[in-house]
Amino acid sequence: MLYADMSREELLKLKSELEAQYGEMKAEGLNLDMSRGKPNIEQLDLSMGMIDVLAKDHSLTCEQGIDCRNYGVLDGIVEAKRLLSAMIECPIDNIIIYGNSSLNVMYDTVARSFTHGVMGSTPWSKLDKVKFLCPVPGYDRHFGITEFFGCEMINIPMNSDGPDMDMVEEYVNNDPAVKGIWCVPKYSNPSGISYSDETVRRFAHLKPAAEDFRIYWDNAYCIHHLYDEPENQDHILEILSECEKAGNPDIVYKFCSTSKVTFPGSGIAAISASKSNLDFIKKQMTIQTIGHDKLNQLRHARFFGDFNGMVEHMKKHAAVLRPKFKAVEDILESGLGGLGIAKWTNPKGGYFIGFDTIDGCAKKVVSMCADAGVKLTGAGATYPYGKDPHDSNIRIAPTYPSTEELKKACKVFVICVKLASVEKFLETK
Amino acid sequence: MLYADMSREELLKLKSELEAQYGEMKAEGLNLDMSRGKPNIEQLDLSMGMIDVLAKDHSLTCEQGIDCRNYGVLDGIVEAKRLLSAMIECPIDNIIIYGNSSLNVMYDTVARSFTHGVMGSTPWSKLDKVKFLCPVPGYDRHFGITEFFGCEMINIPMNSDGPDMDMVEEYVNNDPAVKGIWCVPKYSNPSGISYSDETVRRFAHLKPAAEDFRIYWDNAYCIHHLYDEPENQDHILEILSECEKAGNPDIVYKFCSTSKVTFPGSGIAAISASKSNLDFIKKQMTIQTIGHDKLNQLRHARFFGDFNGMVEHMKKHAAVLRPKFKAVEDILESGLGGLGIAKWTNPKGGYFIGFDTIDGCAKKVVSMCADAGVKLTGAGATYPYGKDPHDSNIRIAPTYPSTEELKKACKVFVICVKLASVEKFLETK
Repeated sequence: MLYADMSREELLKLKSELEAQYGEMKAEGLNLDMSRGKPNIEQLDLSMGMIDVLAKDHSLTCEQGIDCRNYGVLDGIVEAKRLLSAMIECPIDNIIIYGNSSLNVMYDTVARSFTHGVMGSTPWSKLDKVKFLCPVPGYDRHFGITEFFGCEMINIPMNSDGPDMDMVEEYVNNDPAVKGIWCVPKYSNPSGISYSDETVRRFAHLKPAAEDFRIYWDNAYCIHHLYDEPENQDHILEILSECEKAGNPDIVYKFCSTSKVTFPGSGIAAISASKSNLDFIKKQMTIQTIGHDKLNQLRHARFFGDFNGMVEHMKKHAAVLRPKFKAVEDILESGLGGLGIAKWTNPKGGYFIGFDTIDGCAKKVVSMCADAGVKLTGAGATYPYGKDPHDSNIRIAPTYPSTEELKKACKVFVICVKLASVEKFLETK
Repeated sequence: MLYADMSREELLKLKSELEAQYGEMKAEGLNLDMSRGKPNIEQLDLSMGMIDVLAKDHSLTCEQGIDCRNYGVLDGIVEAKRLLSAMIECPIDNIIIYGNSSLNVMYDTVARSFTHGVMGSTPWSKLDKVKFLCPVPGYDRHFGITEFFGCEMINIPMNSDGPDMDMVEEYVNNDPAVKGIWCVPKYSNPSGISYSDETVRRFAHLKPAAEDFRIYWDNAYCIHHLYDEPENQDHILEILSECEKAGNPDIVYKFCSTSKVTFPGSGIAAISASKSNLDFIKKQMTIQTIGHDKLNQLRHARFFGDFNGMVEHMKKHAAVLRPKFKAVEDILESGLGGLGIAKWTNPKGGYFIGFDTIDGCAKKVVSMCADAGVKLTGAGATYPYGKDPHDSNIRIAPTYPSTEELKKACKVFVICVKLASVEKFLETK
């Protein structure tokens, strides 16, 4: 029965039942965490071969004949370029390999635009206003960067096939203060949806009012499928070549990393873009560093052998993660299905399940869960400035806890969603 | 006999002898490189234990109980902090551990000052002019950073005990546009000299006109002695505590890295400063990254055990480098001593020997050496904007070539210095 159709009496009765259940849950003294998109220990164990793959009997010289233990090679050894360009689907000449964090690469990209502009444009620090489009819900750390630099962030609603492209076109094509848009095009953080071909093509065909507008295409989950069969995987159009075809070769930066492939914090990251963009970026890089960690690049290249090895490795991750996502989805379906108080996604990859309560309940749910020992991503975190205008979005991160813990946590979550919803309906009945 | 005392005839005769020798050298078709401060292969081999120190039987959990394979720990694991704070001589609470490059940390420090100011000051990008003091000769990559950001760089002459402190005080204490000074206080790049206690104290007692003035104290060679006996090592006063004593706790950033301790490009770097500075820096770090490579931090901590292990390790580096420095110094002395055409340093540590020709000869010498197959650091590179006003300074980097190669290269160098000097004297005789 839909909660919306319940009478005040029915709601009050339900409330007291739920409160009793909530009380019991609370008494269990749980300490569970569904807040962070972290791989679990079983996943980390998959990459233990990384630890000694460079052991003494191997040469530590890369294909270019350079000793990876010494200085040299600004933009990445060719083995690492080959691996990550296959991962991010770009020609090997359109990539730069960085250190351990794609977030840092994105930060640097924005920071450089502020101090040195974009391929010859005015440095953004000299402008009165810089605006960024932020598809919502989205990734809090993206929004954190543009907030740190004082950008005005504009919410763009996410649909099931990507951001509202009418709105994106309206802003990008008319307002020269709009300098960028944050995108997680595949298995999006947090909703798990992937952009349709139509969405990607509309991105490629933008006619930006600003010459220094760029699409910040964070392909964080490009090979992070939950299922092995191609028909159960999302596939998105490759944006760099679409932009080229559309006569817009320079309007996109693609980012990726192996943080959730090997070891978070000890992976390698990359940027892919047009040659003109990369040439401009390298002018900064030569000043910024002598080079990134080539031994870690070599470690990755040797561990995987080739991209095929990486694909096989990702299947092992998927095998670990599938039951976790399924456990959450099953409990949500059996606990909340048909009540008209929640919507959630059943993503085919990535690290998150997007969840929406009825308006005005997300903060309440997160806080009630916390009181019962279940930590969730802060409500609002998926919006710029931490402000969810509907107070409805919650990011569920099923990857880190054990499946047993996850089930417990989800049961608490279901009770909290029900209770918060009942209380909401009671406000107006 | 001093070249200056020679008659025109004597000089002409000498010239033709030297030209003959130079021609012979050239005919050898050498291909030698004395340009870069790179460790040699023998040195790299000293750290091969790093490659598998984290092999499977070890736990990869750090002392704080955190799995180093996963996300977490923004400012460095405690083992790495302990190691590098001993190396850089600061309390463990006054350090942040970074990724692989102290140059990148310095770049970030300047970049952040431009976009976000220094502990609440106006961002430098909003100022008409930012000036940096540059002790010369100095490190080209330091000057590269401040040039990239459009700072006006002011040459400060280096004396045998550090920069000309009268001039430093004059600028820093009176001109609010002066925001920083680049220092390599120990075994300085390129002269190899170390700052005297008096110099360090005068730095600590500066009374900057600008609240956001900082000393950029790049202690790149803090433990890079060439000799094991303390009396044959340089020791400098610890600047952070001197600044504190002088009531100036916030005016210095110290930088260091293990690039020339373990593997260049695969080391770990650090910044040390007052708590107020570090708190301000961490505000940026939380936006910039989830954390640096903790496995590499752990690798360093486990490889060395403790700072003692690092000191012992540096003695092995010294044993490799000592004969190289000696070879260069011997050939310089026997070839150029007493001729009045060159000065050079005999440093007790670091990576370079500073060399000065008579005015107007450095470019000529470097170019003649190149023609004979001996690559040197570009003349002028040790000055801001690549402009050595005396055209006299040449940086000699003895570390990378084998001792045999080094001897050959030095012999070429000696001939070139003599020939360029003779030609110079002939201009006026």
